[in-house]
Amino acid sequence: MTLQDARRVIAAAEEKSKELRQPMNIAMADEGGNLVAHVRMDGAWLGSIDIAIKKAYTSRAFNIVTKDLAAHSQSGEQFFGIHASNDGKIMIFAGGIPLEKDGKIVGAIGVSGGSGEQDHAVAEAGAGAF
Amino acid sequence: MTLQDARRVIAAAEEKSKELRQPMNIAMADEGGNLVAHVRMDGAWLGSIDIAIKKAYTSRAFNIVTKDLAAHSQSGEQFFGIHASNDGKIMIFAGGIPLEKDGKIVGAIGVSGGSGEQDHAVAEAGAGAF
Amino acid sequence: MTLQDARRVIAAAEEKSKELRQPMNIAMADEGGNLVAHVRMDGAWLGSIDIAIKKAYTSRAFNIVTKDLAAHSQSGEQFFGIHASNDGKIMIFAGGIPLEKDGKIVGAIGVSGGSGEQDHAVAEAGAGAF
Amino acid sequence: MTLQDARRVIAAAEEKSKELRQPMNIAMADEGGNLVAHVRMDGAWLGSIDIAIKKAYTSRAFNIVTKDLAAHSQSGEQFFGIHASNDGKIMIFAGGIPLEKDGKIVGAIGVSGGSGEQDHAVAEAGAGAF
Repeated sequence: MTLQDARRVIAAAEEKSKELRQPMNIAMADEGGNLVAHVRMDGAWLGSIDIAIKKAYTSRAFNIVTKDLAAHSQSGEQFFGIHASNDGKIMIFAGGIPLEKDGKIVGAIGVSGGSGEQDHAVAEAGAGAF
Repeated sequence: MTLQDARRVIAAAEEKSKELRQPMNIAMADEGGNLVAHVRMDGAWLGSIDIAIKKAYTSRAFNIVTKDLAAHSQSGEQFFGIHASNDGKIMIFAGGIPLEKDGKIVGAIGVSGGSGEQDHAVAEAGAGAF
Repeated sequence: MTLQDARRVIAAAEEKSKELRQPMNIAMADEGGNLVAHVRMDGAWLGSIDIAIKKAYTSRAFNIVTKDLAAHSQSGEQFFGIHASNDGKIMIFAGGIPLEKDGKIVGAIGVSGGSGEQDHAVAEAGAGAF
Repeated sequence: MTLQDARRVIAAAEEKSKELRQPMNIAMADEGGNLVAHVRMDGAWLGSIDIAIKKAYTSRAFNIVTKDLAAHSQSGEQFFGIHASNDGKIMIFAGGIPLEKDGKIVGAIGVSGGSGEQDHAVAEAGAGAF
């Protein structure tokens, strides 16, 4: 995951975000789960800076779409309580998607700033550009 | 959000709190989510100092009434797990209200010290004075 | 330490701060070291919100003027490293002063927003009004 | 501080970084000290992600060049211990510079990835483009 890759993904995500008229925080993690780049679009929620970065981390950390992790992490489900792990870096709701290259997961995108549905749609648009 | 603005809001919230005979912690955040002022009324809960400050932050961070955020943050809902974000600064129950000036959110009030209903009522009284 | 007491002390500190033309964060702690009130004067440093609150805590926690604690907390001195205790709530530089009533320490003022000398002078002006 | 502003500053900083042949993490904070954008150039240190973000915060939080804050924060100096404040978000070495618009500080740049001298030079190049 180069910075150039990350910027291409972010650009596609920003375009989708503008189309939805909902400004977003968009973050990119690399193979090690570490931040490559982050942008907060003008007017996006302050509280979503941290969430976008953590969705990217979470998605790579478990190689999972965070929308799917959500299903397993509700009260009563097998991973309930996972959000308390990893020093609080785990986000268990929609907006994070792992990114694959040659059959191997090499990073992830995390998006936050709207409804779960919007966040996931923007992350998908970004992932499509990878 | 000047300190004078914050004091006017706090005074109105205190008045409502006295009317309800339930002493409160009242906190004001500015546009960046940073604390402008805090008061703990005599006899108010110690554990509510932190909660009031964090409700103000949360309300500005997501431009939302925390009572409404609560509904989206229960197990099974789209933002379940959001309380683990932002280094534990997110409070997902009633008592935080964003404050608007000229159609733009420029801060928030956070109240803690009674029932959710009381906290919200005191926050509303404060918000009304902004 | 009532809220009224705290407000009287803060008012005196604000006046001194205006005289020095350096806006400050001013915080008041009670006998238990817990926050009673905080104000950020317009234009005061954002990073000083936390520091003012922690100076008040520190001053009551050790019943000491933080300027004096500083002398004991430098590298090579007897309390070097104390700033890492109490979950990071210990501030070891000037601006915190314990407040006494009938020979007993019942709270403290913490000030941050200028040089150590300015912070201490403003805290002293506040303490003088207690 | 718009995202467009932040990108212009980052671009100038990246150019300087390439000139020095030392890849950097570059972060931008807004008036409230909140992150606007971050990039990690290919090959830049992982440990510098956090440091760049925190230098930007620190620089805005105290309206100071972090290289200057360093001088006041050594053992024996007036702000020694300040690095323990603000939940560990204070960085007291070179690489952070506040950004001014119309005589008012509206954000900051934070750079990390090389020597203190290099970090500061890259931050200065970025600041020059604001």
